[in-house]
Amino acid sequence: MNHERLVFINGEMVPESRATVSLFDIGRLYGAAFYESIRTFRHTLFHLTEHYARLKASLRYAGILDMLDFNRVEEAIIKTLEANIDLTHEDDDMWICVEVTPGTGFPMPLKKGNKSTPTVFAYSSELPHADYVRYYAEGKPAVTSIFRNIPSQSFEQRCKNRARLPHYLSKLYCQGIDPDAFALMLDTNGFVTEGTGANIFFVSNGKLFTPTMRNILNGISRLYTIELAKNAGIEVIEKDIGLYEAYNAEEAFWTTTSYCILPIRTIDGRRIGGGKPGKTTLSLLSAWSESVGVDIVGQAKLFSRV
Amino acid sequence: MNHERLVFINGEMVPESRATVSLFDIGRLYGAAFYESIRTFRHTLFHLTEHYARLKASLRYAGILDMLDFNRVEEAIIKTLEANIDLTHEDDDMWICVEVTPGTGFPMPLKKGNKSTPTVFAYSSELPHADYVRYYAEGKPAVTSIFRNIPSQSFEQRCKNRARLPHYLSKLYCQGIDPDAFALMLDTNGFVTEGTGANIFFVSNGKLFTPTMRNILNGISRLYTIELAKNAGIEVIEKDIGLYEAYNAEEAFWTTTSYCILPIRTIDGRRIGGGKPGKTTLSLLSAWSESVGVDIVGQAKLFSRV
Amino acid sequence: MNHERLVFINGEMVPESRATVSLFDIGRLYGAAFYESIRTFRHTLFHLTEHYARLKASLRYAGILDMLDFNRVEEAIIKTLEANIDLTHEDDDMWICVEVTPGTGFPMPLKKGNKSTPTVFAYSSELPHADYVRYYAEGKPAVTSIFRNIPSQSFEQRCKNRARLPHYLSKLYCQGIDPDAFALMLDTNGFVTEGTGANIFFVSNGKLFTPTMRNILNGISRLYTIELAKNAGIEVIEKDIGLYEAYNAEEAFWTTTSYCILPIRTIDGRRIGGGKPGKTTLSLLSAWSESVGVDIVGQAKLFSRV
Amino acid sequence: MNHERLVFINGEMVPESRATVSLFDIGRLYGAAFYESIRTFRHTLFHLTEHYARLKASLRYAGILDMLDFNRVEEAIIKTLEANIDLTHEDDDMWICVEVTPGTGFPMPLKKGNKSTPTVFAYSSELPHADYVRYYAEGKPAVTSIFRNIPSQSFEQRCKNRARLPHYLSKLYCQGIDPDAFALMLDTNGFVTEGTGANIFFVSNGKLFTPTMRNILNGISRLYTIELAKNAGIEVIEKDIGLYEAYNAEEAFWTTTSYCILPIRTIDGRRIGGGKPGKTTLSLLSAWSESVGVDIVGQAKLFSRV
Amino acid sequence: MNHERLVFINGEMVPESRATVSLFDIGRLYGAAFYESIRTFRHTLFHLTEHYARLKASLRYAGILDMLDFNRVEEAIIKTLEANIDLTHEDDDMWICVEVTPGTGFPMPLKKGNKSTPTVFAYSSELPHADYVRYYAEGKPAVTSIFRNIPSQSFEQRCKNRARLPHYLSKLYCQGIDPDAFALMLDTNGFVTEGTGANIFFVSNGKLFTPTMRNILNGISRLYTIELAKNAGIEVIEKDIGLYEAYNAEEAFWTTTSYCILPIRTIDGRRIGGGKPGKTTLSLLSAWSESVGVDIVGQAKLFSRV
Amino acid sequence: MNHERLVFINGEMVPESRATVSLFDIGRLYGAAFYESIRTFRHTLFHLTEHYARLKASLRYAGILDMLDFNRVEEAIIKTLEANIDLTHEDDDMWICVEVTPGTGFPMPLKKGNKSTPTVFAYSSELPHADYVRYYAEGKPAVTSIFRNIPSQSFEQRCKNRARLPHYLSKLYCQGIDPDAFALMLDTNGFVTEGTGANIFFVSNGKLFTPTMRNILNGISRLYTIELAKNAGIEVIEKDIGLYEAYNAEEAFWTTTSYCILPIRTIDGRRIGGGKPGKTTLSLLSAWSESVGVDIVGQAKLFSRV
Repeated sequence: MNHERLVFINGEMVPESRATVSLFDIGRLYGAAFYESIRTFRHTLFHLTEHYARLKASLRYAGILDMLDFNRVEEAIIKTLEANIDLTHEDDDMWICVEVTPGTGFPMPLKKGNKSTPTVFAYSSELPHADYVRYYAEGKPAVTSIFRNIPSQSFEQRCKNRARLPHYLSKLYCQGIDPDAFALMLDTNGFVTEGTGANIFFVSNGKLFTPTMRNILNGISRLYTIELAKNAGIEVIEKDIGLYEAYNAEEAFWTTTSYCILPIRTIDGRRIGGGKPGKTTLSLLSAWSESVGVDIVGQAKLFSRV
Repeated sequence: MNHERLVFINGEMVPESRATVSLFDIGRLYGAAFYESIRTFRHTLFHLTEHYARLKASLRYAGILDMLDFNRVEEAIIKTLEANIDLTHEDDDMWICVEVTPGTGFPMPLKKGNKSTPTVFAYSSELPHADYVRYYAEGKPAVTSIFRNIPSQSFEQRCKNRARLPHYLSKLYCQGIDPDAFALMLDTNGFVTEGTGANIFFVSNGKLFTPTMRNILNGISRLYTIELAKNAGIEVIEKDIGLYEAYNAEEAFWTTTSYCILPIRTIDGRRIGGGKPGKTTLSLLSAWSESVGVDIVGQAKLFSRV
Repeated sequence: MNHERLVFINGEMVPESRATVSLFDIGRLYGAAFYESIRTFRHTLFHLTEHYARLKASLRYAGILDMLDFNRVEEAIIKTLEANIDLTHEDDDMWICVEVTPGTGFPMPLKKGNKSTPTVFAYSSELPHADYVRYYAEGKPAVTSIFRNIPSQSFEQRCKNRARLPHYLSKLYCQGIDPDAFALMLDTNGFVTEGTGANIFFVSNGKLFTPTMRNILNGISRLYTIELAKNAGIEVIEKDIGLYEAYNAEEAFWTTTSYCILPIRTIDGRRIGGGKPGKTTLSLLSAWSESVGVDIVGQAKLFSRV
Repeated sequence: MNHERLVFINGEMVPESRATVSLFDIGRLYGAAFYESIRTFRHTLFHLTEHYARLKASLRYAGILDMLDFNRVEEAIIKTLEANIDLTHEDDDMWICVEVTPGTGFPMPLKKGNKSTPTVFAYSSELPHADYVRYYAEGKPAVTSIFRNIPSQSFEQRCKNRARLPHYLSKLYCQGIDPDAFALMLDTNGFVTEGTGANIFFVSNGKLFTPTMRNILNGISRLYTIELAKNAGIEVIEKDIGLYEAYNAEEAFWTTTSYCILPIRTIDGRRIGGGKPGKTTLSLLSAWSESVGVDIVGQAKLFSRV
Repeated sequence: MNHERLVFINGEMVPESRATVSLFDIGRLYGAAFYESIRTFRHTLFHLTEHYARLKASLRYAGILDMLDFNRVEEAIIKTLEANIDLTHEDDDMWICVEVTPGTGFPMPLKKGNKSTPTVFAYSSELPHADYVRYYAEGKPAVTSIFRNIPSQSFEQRCKNRARLPHYLSKLYCQGIDPDAFALMLDTNGFVTEGTGANIFFVSNGKLFTPTMRNILNGISRLYTIELAKNAGIEVIEKDIGLYEAYNAEEAFWTTTSYCILPIRTIDGRRIGGGKPGKTTLSLLSAWSESVGVDIVGQAKLFSRV
Repeated sequence: MNHERLVFINGEMVPESRATVSLFDIGRLYGAAFYESIRTFRHTLFHLTEHYARLKASLRYAGILDMLDFNRVEEAIIKTLEANIDLTHEDDDMWICVEVTPGTGFPMPLKKGNKSTPTVFAYSSELPHADYVRYYAEGKPAVTSIFRNIPSQSFEQRCKNRARLPHYLSKLYCQGIDPDAFALMLDTNGFVTEGTGANIFFVSNGKLFTPTMRNILNGISRLYTIELAKNAGIEVIEKDIGLYEAYNAEEAFWTTTSYCILPIRTIDGRRIGGGKPGKTTLSLLSAWSESVGVDIVGQAKLFSRV
């Protein structure tokens, strides 16, 4: 129960401290790694079918779905869950990440005739409750990045991938301005896209607004939030959103795998709503808690160790 | 003399078969790895000063230069050369790659207050002569990719990095059309940028044309080719180049670390010049051979083992 | 009852002929003035709440809402109405404009530490009936401008502001072609945005079409027209509209504070519909008249003094 | 000698505290004011001919040159200098701003047939030495703005105008991040344009780089800096400059009317050069001092009153 | 019954082998020819009213509707049908194309004062069943073109015209890659537009997706497919569609006048759905057959002569 | 000597009144016709070699050079000259146009396996002196079109082609504004490109400016003007030119095959220079006359028949 976490790498379970990928893996050489980040609720993996479907879509886009026996992905996830779940308190939950790359090849990756075997690995983590627990109540500042998200004609962010240099640059940029803030990334036309690891939503006149999927991650949490909103009779509109609309929203929040929904307090120093989490945001978070049978905020409070 | 290649990883030399990077390295998680690819001529590293300067520029751009003791990079290169040079025939040469990433951090990379130590590693390879030797004489086909290079407002290709998903998609796309071809990438305005691992040059009316550095790799081989051309009294013009100009060039060639200069035979099926290497291309390649004291084509022929 | 109009400037009522703003007001120095233009119907200010909300949104976007006691704006409007309403015939109406700027500062506006007090002023006018009365019956020509509206990543037109140089250039351009015409401005992709002081609508197949709010003024008259249309069971669609759709519309009209709805007769010389005001246009105008208890066209006829 | 400054407004000299422009001036209503900002050296106006030429170009672009008797501009400048020069210490210098607008018109500016008479005014100021004197030695931080400069197809920044809302928003944005910093504005493609009141230069490999004039102010100080550089045998290159090049410059500096040349210490937190004024920057500043017979830095030190 | 086809040219019926247009016709000199391509079902012209309306819209856009007696177009279609229908088997159908150009003018087309008379011609053809019959069962490969469709600010593809050089280049490009394939054209932002003579549809999650009409042909077959889908209770969504969505569609198909609906098997080598015609595609095709009283696939099989 | 002009069509000479192209010629169906327009000086074809080279470049770009026996083009030109030269007065000159299309194919142009034979034709004309003679002295007005030139990623204007619908729309647009004017076309970024049948030049500070070749015709007259300027010691700069620069040029002129150089008097109503032909313009025209041994203006005067 106190063992080191185990990581699945191409079929084997290895201790996390030795969990590595070859320097010559094409995933590393090109950022051509496609992954899913899945959390449990009550120790059950959430929306697993949707994650499988999205990963298949990423791999088809990247042209490597046909090279892969997809059972290997399912095996990776299941085995990683089983091997590590005992490290998670029965009232807490965990996080699993599974990745697929085209495999290893050096010095001539992708050379004619040399079909490589995809690399599959999966690793787990405790949920980083301490990092966000206080923002459920306070809201988290957002800062617009000067680095623009990659346009879809270069490649589509919709597929969850590791070629995220603008996200890294944005994170760093935003830490320099406000260490507490998350970065907000615009597209090359100046419209809001996403955070560096989360989707974004706005509330105005009782409706939910979120960017179109033109060049953002096709977030599973984003889709679930839309579903929850529709169930609650809230209209959801996908459209181009500029900074005027962002600054003037009544509420704003991030969605992602770990914290589910996190309120935004300010954007570029403008207070959103009254500067504290809005009631639509909180009601969506409650609906989520209810639907999964876990008090999401309560759990974060209980298990955060600052 | 017949030992396995040794790889430098954060100060240690390890056998290539065990050369790995942590799954949680930020370089891998974001494609935020910055690297140099350097070859030897007569067992001496070529243009080492220029490679140091370019790597520093990449790291400054990425905001991590100040976190790094740059001596570690120099040590990595020297040690990797020393540890592997005996594997290279005295008339052949080798290739060294050195990489720097922001270091390891999971699950919250780049978190406030947690400055990570950059990861530094270097690995070597024999030159893949067999892969390109015949193209010196025949020229290599080029195929325009439908995936566009990333615009500089997302991040600048000028820094040599590992977030190259459009390059991966382009390589794959082009292999599907012609397994023999290299992919040619356009920018989001449709102008020629670079190959997936090489810069491109055209010859028209006795002048050398090459794309501006707006969103291409700042290639050391590119710069050396410009220098050789100027020494030979050839005017070099950097400008926006469209497909009309590319298709109608008298000559065209790639430049990169390993093969130095490689003629292009066709672009999208249009024969360039007479469909065989042009005289300016060949004279620049000769000038390069002369200046480094290695018959580049001869060496490739001698050591290619198809 | 025959006195000069009085203008509200920072709390004081001054005669219009002496109504001035400091040369060093930041609003003048940067076009950073945010305003509302409001008309009365039966001597009551129309949609005042909506105008307040829009002005607040403009000021929040511009980062100056928190510096301002918004009561000053309300005071400006009320006092200006009261001080000038006796100049308006009981069957006619008037027009009030209220503006807010960041205040005065020279030679170093916006200097660190120097928070300036926003400037607030309001002025009134009779409605310029004579300028448009005949177009209710004839329709007004429109001419597409060669100067493109400012893209939202520079700043958003949604906020009513005074940095409208492309609007000035377009007005002048269009007067040169047809002194009778209003200018139609395109965005940087060539889609229809707005006039130089009005929003635009088209009717096709019984539906109302109008540009999305991506880079146009968030017109109160635009919103009211949409409301009237919906009440009349007319579907309203916001979308990208090109010149093909504009030229081929069955009807087209402008909306703005003063004339409410004004039919368009031609665009770039192409007759719209039969070249005279369409029935949807006229029915919306009637609905407006009815809802405010003023025969808008009748009033314009009665009080126009050509 | 201790009187209030006098301002020229349409032919009259009025005390600064009463220097105002009509609320209904088209310059104010549209940001359609075109101006020149000129400083003296040894009480002589610097590059007056160039300022006249640039103002004429602005007015021709704006379509109002033909309506104006340009002698009025010359008169404004001369009279303003004469009326205020006695307020300037014999070893100090002053600053004059002259502006032209299309004139006054309300409520229907630019209406057919109503040619308005352009408004001409000029005002003066002491030089704000205290605001920048310490940056000559330390360099000034620069912060990239998220608001992009207006593209030239909307209107050209080359003409010095008052529709500068993105400049205002950028100033405010940048003060929020670092009250000490100047904002650096990018164009809609992400290339460097200018500051909010200054042009920018970079030094790399002994050459001077500055953005092309595509969408920046055609700065007189910019042109003079280029002239000084050429006289000193320094090559000057106008080109698209991205953040990679900006961050990696050996030196960087602003040019403007008041402080002439001001070194840049950091851009987005990256130290430029060693983080202190570079030798090319300082030598150009010296050359300027020499050519005008005023020790620019010395004067700023002597007359700054912090 | 075995005579040569007859072509309508400006009022006369001439044998196809002598069907020509003047070299100096402006339609030919500028690609300024606007046309409709109409097929019969059971020897009756399909959706003639819609074709008339679209042609009028094209001509109004092109500024030549007012010069033309539209009866000439109707006469052309009717006469061409009558003159050639006996060449078509009673169970087969035919195809008629009618074109309008601004008329003839050389060497100074469009010269001031010289109003030319529009040229009107119409020609017919048997349906090229053999060219596509096998794809109803197999699906047809699609290949993305590197040549981008013309943006609407140059001119709008919505009007059916003859200035289709990118379509020609794309056809040729795609034949070079796969002689069996149709080319898929992207817009200048990288979103899917249309084929070189057909519109495109995708099926995902039981809904039909198709590009917005921003820069594609306003296809009559496209509109009819949307109508059929709505009748069948299938939701139809017009939106920006990138390659990720295209590659991951469950079904995809082309629509055009001749073959009505043609399934797509692969896009850039990725198999769509299972790589064979999907059930929504086939059910729409059946609905079409039913509604027109012709077994479309059966007819193609019967009359194809490979 | 008084016979009808003869036109070369695929090897035969036919009277102009019967000079036609098949309705089913791909050149007509797609605007895929590539041509050269050549004039004589003293009855000798001017810059024939350059025209051959440009046509070959157009055909290589369009992928049809290899299908064509280029002798057919040379034959067409020579025969057309010979067959018609007797219609031209010995002191006057003529104009020949040669065109190449991919050939005829209907209903399935470009179908797999069906290589068509290119169509080649050539026709001649007297020079339309009367249409432009008075502008040599007065200058010709220019009006900026609202239709933007096609971007090079759709296809490159550099190749002289017949898919010029924006040029047609621009011509029509401009005739509507000023029947005397030529249209000036901007690119999709708002920079000056070309006229609808001519290149454009500007003179500022004694230098010649002209747009880069990014998306304009590679004019032979443009190249010759550059050559003449260089011979006269005038610096020639190719760059992005906006309307500010165009309006403020000291001189401006068109270049094309027929009139060689034609001064521009106004652009969008702004007088260029003093509103009459500038001295650099006239000196270049003189140099041209001298170099070809024909007084170009004199000839136009002599042979214009208004």
